[in-house]
Amino acid sequence: MKALRYHGRADVRVEDLPTPDPADGEILVRIATTGICGSDIHEYRGGPLAIPLDTPHPLTGDRAPVTMGHEFSGTIVALGSGATGLRVGQRVAASAVLRCGTCPSCTAGHPQLCRTLGFHGISGGGGAFAEFDAFPAYLANPLPDEISDEAGALLEPLATGIHAVGRSGLTPGQSALVVGAGPIGLMVVVAALAAGADQIIVSEPSPVRAKAAARFGATAVLDPKADDVVARVRELTGGHGVDAAFDTAAAPTSFDTALAAVRPRGHVVNVAVWENPTPLQPNALLFSEATITGSLAYTPAEFTRAVEIAAGGAHDLESMVTRSIALADVVTHGFERLAADPGADIKVLVRP
Amino acid sequence: MKALRYHGRADVRVEDLPTPDPADGEILVRIATTGICGSDIHEYRGGPLAIPLDTPHPLTGDRAPVTMGHEFSGTIVALGSGATGLRVGQRVAASAVLRCGTCPSCTAGHPQLCRTLGFHGISGGGGAFAEFDAFPAYLANPLPDEISDEAGALLEPLATGIHAVGRSGLTPGQSALVVGAGPIGLMVVVAALAAGADQIIVSEPSPVRAKAAARFGATAVLDPKADDVVARVRELTGGHGVDAAFDTAAAPTSFDTALAAVRPRGHVVNVAVWENPTPLQPNALLFSEATITGSLAYTPAEFTRAVEIAAGGAHDLESMVTRSIALADVVTHGFERLAADPGADIKVLVRP
Repeated sequence: MKALRYHGRADVRVEDLPTPDPADGEILVRIATTGICGSDIHEYRGGPLAIPLDTPHPLTGDRAPVTMGHEFSGTIVALGSGATGLRVGQRVAASAVLRCGTCPSCTAGHPQLCRTLGFHGISGGGGAFAEFDAFPAYLANPLPDEISDEAGALLEPLATGIHAVGRSGLTPGQSALVVGAGPIGLMVVVAALAAGADQIIVSEPSPVRAKAAARFGATAVLDPKADDVVARVRELTGGHGVDAAFDTAAAPTSFDTALAAVRPRGHVVNVAVWENPTPLQPNALLFSEATITGSLAYTPAEFTRAVEIAAGGAHDLESMVTRSIALADVVTHGFERLAADPGADIKVLVRP
Repeated sequence: MKALRYHGRADVRVEDLPTPDPADGEILVRIATTGICGSDIHEYRGGPLAIPLDTPHPLTGDRAPVTMGHEFSGTIVALGSGATGLRVGQRVAASAVLRCGTCPSCTAGHPQLCRTLGFHGISGGGGAFAEFDAFPAYLANPLPDEISDEAGALLEPLATGIHAVGRSGLTPGQSALVVGAGPIGLMVVVAALAAGADQIIVSEPSPVRAKAAARFGATAVLDPKADDVVARVRELTGGHGVDAAFDTAAAPTSFDTALAAVRPRGHVVNVAVWENPTPLQPNALLFSEATITGSLAYTPAEFTRAVEIAAGGAHDLESMVTRSIALADVVTHGFERLAADPGADIKVLVRP
């Protein structure tokens, strides 16, 4: 079968691989469609960040070259021994969070903070930019008929947005600023609405993404190239600032904007992968007692919640898909193009 | 009377001023003794930071030159009209937090986050490096006989330590790392013990401060010049990291150390005033979901708690005082010496 493999920075290749066999506890899935994630592009342009290059990953035993792709939907075609609770023919989407199951974070219900954390489609052990993919059955979430293959491939970023909103402590009636309206920013908008936010302000320079933010329910969309975002947020919140701000952009000023826009004791959540450090003046935390935290992936319960929200049908998730390309074209039309001009697209899906 | 006034960076002078009259709602206090705070030295060496230089402070109407000094004890010698609940002859210490009383933070019980926040002894409206000081009665806390004048001058930093521990969410049986064992670091140790911490690790290069940390109850004292602090913290916490870390140092690596030493979802509290930004790699927050926040001053209830802890007598707070100097010598023996070599002392008190 054909699969996209990561060899190193700026070196991803579509190669011929044997169709995998599901190992003990694994399922084999025929991939329907797979999204290109911002973190895939970070690995391509600035990585390896989470991809094991020299030392095999402790959970998968693999190192580069590894197959990429972790936002997908597909149909189960075979079950390995010990893969219970699922059946051949079932449509599924999958969590990417590989965990040891025994460390303090895993036993506390936070596998995304596992001491030996890995990601399916990043850390080895399979990947979904391929015709078939074998992975642990515990990652699979069955899809109801209401969820299309395309929407199924968007559940992984939706779960990421749900987790980020959870990390912010946002409660019904509160306000949020979302910096960046790429797929994760838009999913934060969807999740903030689901959490009962009254006011969702989005800052996004790309016209196609700004339009999508309004369509998904942002109450105001600002252009950081034209607007003084912090001043406008103050105006829109009666001078007080927002309750929560989400940095999904990792742009030079995005973090400062988020921190300056929150109310006293407000919460800033970093959902972005950064390729480099950014300057922080800790006095900014002192005089506002604001909180900064990070949000990584999601818990199994949050992935289930993503399935519920998507099945509820309140949002046309598929409208995030700006292009659907063939696996044969994923290097040129996918990775190279997104690395050069990320703002021109929202979500690009790949068909094997 | 003699008083120390701030004119600008590296320019503080002992000058003759008229003895103040207590205005409506104010009390007049004869100062017993006043501590030199790290933030006084920040204003002297890197300021003005919170001292109003060109624009009068909205709460006090004052701008530089202003009288400094906000950690003190003294005796009430006169009451202005409307200053109720206090009497002449009473010994008091005082909160420094001036507030408007009407903004959202004030009405939520967080005057330290007041929109027009000021500090008595920094923002004008009086100061305690003087023979007499007039200030709003709401700042005063009567002192029981168990608390000496010297310990009374240490209640303001103790309240700051109590607030910092509160911001960390530390619960009984948990572990803490305190970076820096100056007066605030030591007060965080005292407050963490009072909050029931089981394990308190301190990182401090100055021998006099390191010894004091052990005396005040640190379970381990590390030397950041000789020890790999993060590796040692991991060893001492079974590989997991501490529940809370406090940066009281604002040193080049102190923030990174605190962030790297906390467990997944641990809390980092910045209690230090920084003169410059420091680089932050936000991915460090992503992969641990650690939280960074700031801790500024204290609430009135926390100042009351400081009085209770000091009156309880479990700690020899006065042993933090490494020198007691006369007001006439405060510039040379106080500010100049502390700015040049802060680690040689812990707390320096000034007698008018």
